[in-house]
Amino acid sequence: PLTVDWDAGHYDTGGYEHYLLKEISEQPETITRTMSGRLDERFHVAHLGGLNMDARETRGFRRVKIIGCGSAYYSGQIGAQLIEELARIPSDAEPASEFRYRNPVVDPDTLYVAISQSGETYDTLAAVQELKRKGGRVIGIVNAVGSAIAREVDGGIYLHAGPEVSVASTKAFTSTSVAFALLALHLGRVRDLSPADGRRIVEGLRRLPGQIEEILTQSDKIAELAQKYATHASMMFVGRVRGYPVAREGAQKLKEISYVHAEAYPASELKHGPLALIGPDMPTVAIVPDDELLDKNLTTLGEIRARGGQVLMVGHREPDAKLADDVIVIPKNEIELDPILLTIPLQLLAYHAAVALGRDVDKPRNLAKSVTVE
Amino acid sequence: PLTVDWDAGHYDTGGYEHYLLKEISEQPETITRTMSGRLDERFHVAHLGGLNMDARETRGFRRVKIIGCGSAYYSGQIGAQLIEELARIPSDAEPASEFRYRNPVVDPDTLYVAISQSGETYDTLAAVQELKRKGGRVIGIVNAVGSAIAREVDGGIYLHAGPEVSVASTKAFTSTSVAFALLALHLGRVRDLSPADGRRIVEGLRRLPGQIEEILTQSDKIAELAQKYATHASMMFVGRVRGYPVAREGAQKLKEISYVHAEAYPASELKHGPLALIGPDMPTVAIVPDDELLDKNLTTLGEIRARGGQVLMVGHREPDAKLADDVIVIPKNEIELDPILLTIPLQLLAYHAAVALGRDVDKPRNLAKSVTVE
Repeated sequence: PLTVDWDAGHYDTGGYEHYLLKEISEQPETITRTMSGRLDERFHVAHLGGLNMDARETRGFRRVKIIGCGSAYYSGQIGAQLIEELARIPSDAEPASEFRYRNPVVDPDTLYVAISQSGETYDTLAAVQELKRKGGRVIGIVNAVGSAIAREVDGGIYLHAGPEVSVASTKAFTSTSVAFALLALHLGRVRDLSPADGRRIVEGLRRLPGQIEEILTQSDKIAELAQKYATHASMMFVGRVRGYPVAREGAQKLKEISYVHAEAYPASELKHGPLALIGPDMPTVAIVPDDELLDKNLTTLGEIRARGGQVLMVGHREPDAKLADDVIVIPKNEIELDPILLTIPLQLLAYHAAVALGRDVDKPRNLAKSVTVE
Repeated sequence: PLTVDWDAGHYDTGGYEHYLLKEISEQPETITRTMSGRLDERFHVAHLGGLNMDARETRGFRRVKIIGCGSAYYSGQIGAQLIEELARIPSDAEPASEFRYRNPVVDPDTLYVAISQSGETYDTLAAVQELKRKGGRVIGIVNAVGSAIAREVDGGIYLHAGPEVSVASTKAFTSTSVAFALLALHLGRVRDLSPADGRRIVEGLRRLPGQIEEILTQSDKIAELAQKYATHASMMFVGRVRGYPVAREGAQKLKEISYVHAEAYPASELKHGPLALIGPDMPTVAIVPDDELLDKNLTTLGEIRARGGQVLMVGHREPDAKLADDVIVIPKNEIELDPILLTIPLQLLAYHAAVALGRDVDKPRNLAKSVTVE
């Protein structure tokens, strides 16, 4: 019989008004646990013994395909970007249910990665089983030890984020993203990622917990912004490349717990359609990291403002005042790791919007914590 | 000097109230032109001499990556599904701008396909140039002969759909989807697609024009439905696998010309977040083809209705009355080709919604026909 240890302390709100705020606030500690014992400062690599793969096998993969549902899928998009950037292996993420039903070609030289906080998400589990049946090599990124997906995969990375009680995922999302950074570092350092770049990423990862603490101190300011923006029934979230999955997760969080119709779009795709929606009634949350796409993103802000759209920018520095109505400035890390930090203010924005609108924050209508049905 | 022949007749609305309705109505003829001279009834193959590729080269590709912007990207999703199903080559589509800015790994054994009606879409052109610089093999699916992208690619398929004047793409979308069916048939028949399956697809393609005519006769009924549903500020469009790109294009069309905030989601992803939005104020357009996913889609309709959401179903048969408020039934083709037909009622829905709301149908606010800037 399987014995599950649990600590009652995880199941109270620990002085916070909601589990969600508790779990948002825990993230400096939870991502530290995800990294714990896995960073090697001497060789600038990640130790991921749970993958059960030797270096030769690890080098052999020619593609990475990531599957998950909901926020797990969006963290998979962050993961795909990290792996393609750091390890130079073509990578992409796909919703698990779409993947399993389209009778996909299963490649022997592809590494499949299944993501699930609970480890019990039915569509993801069924996709893993289909992959295994076809001889696919599957690893899991899972929070719940001993869960169905954890038992089914060939190996994996446990998040060690502790139980997540609130239906909307926050700490599991950031821990999954950190796990992907570890995996990207691992895949990269058995390939062409240099020791210097490896060190840069390891040091960047070490800085994340303190930087999340800094962002959390802006909670009151973000609460004010949430009150201002949550009065709109519809909102647009935009980002480019590394910023796009951040925008998707931000929109998802707002949808789930505030019931605001928030939709995410790649910033560059706005002018191919959605720009028609932009006007005074539909504000935009723009993810604008200080990376090589900064100028393009600032141009997009100008286009939105020219159509009378309000802009709430999340980024690393104050832009020209005429480009944004409001700005949340957060600490900068390495460009590859910035997406992890950029999600934190959006979690707070969704939380405070839900509180302002009087929603049932921890148990949004119509949704279940883990979706164990098809 | 380049001489462009044009026929003034293409540039009047030909008795229709708007270019958009004219172009929707032309589709039986425009897709016929796309297929003209390209279908071989003897060997059940497609003749695509413009690809400039011999059979051995054609067999050598191990992946297909499709890039485009806006509706071109969504037709690329239909194309990826067609190619993976018929040719069993892993295929996916990506917005051209996201692709070009994320410094993608360019594979020597990947076939890249760039889509653009105008052949001048800047982001797509720049992505093609980046691919060529890295030695990638790129073909184009383009409407405008002699356009910048047509000149840049190694080969391609011209749509021959005639000039598209309305900003919202309709006939170029269906012709692009048909061009992908030809490409999938071509890639499939140099691989494992049997002559019998080749014949099935060739015969299915031949039936499309007449079936589109049939759908067009439902225009008045769809106009009534548009009046009913366009009163809502927000709508959800859902589909699974082959139906998902159809849902995306349907939502895009409605967004562009009616300014209704229509968002598309894979049906299976609803319960991982967006279901929280569903209620009497947000109706759902559900793409429910009569394929192997019918039961799953009907279950989704039940979940939406249980939350008080109205459902407009587009599919091949009337469901149980309690599963949908309204149904548009269209003719059935082969399951692989059904997405092409399923888009037609959604074009009419968007058109009539825009008319009902008094929008500038052919020139929606904030949008340009071809986006020749970044």
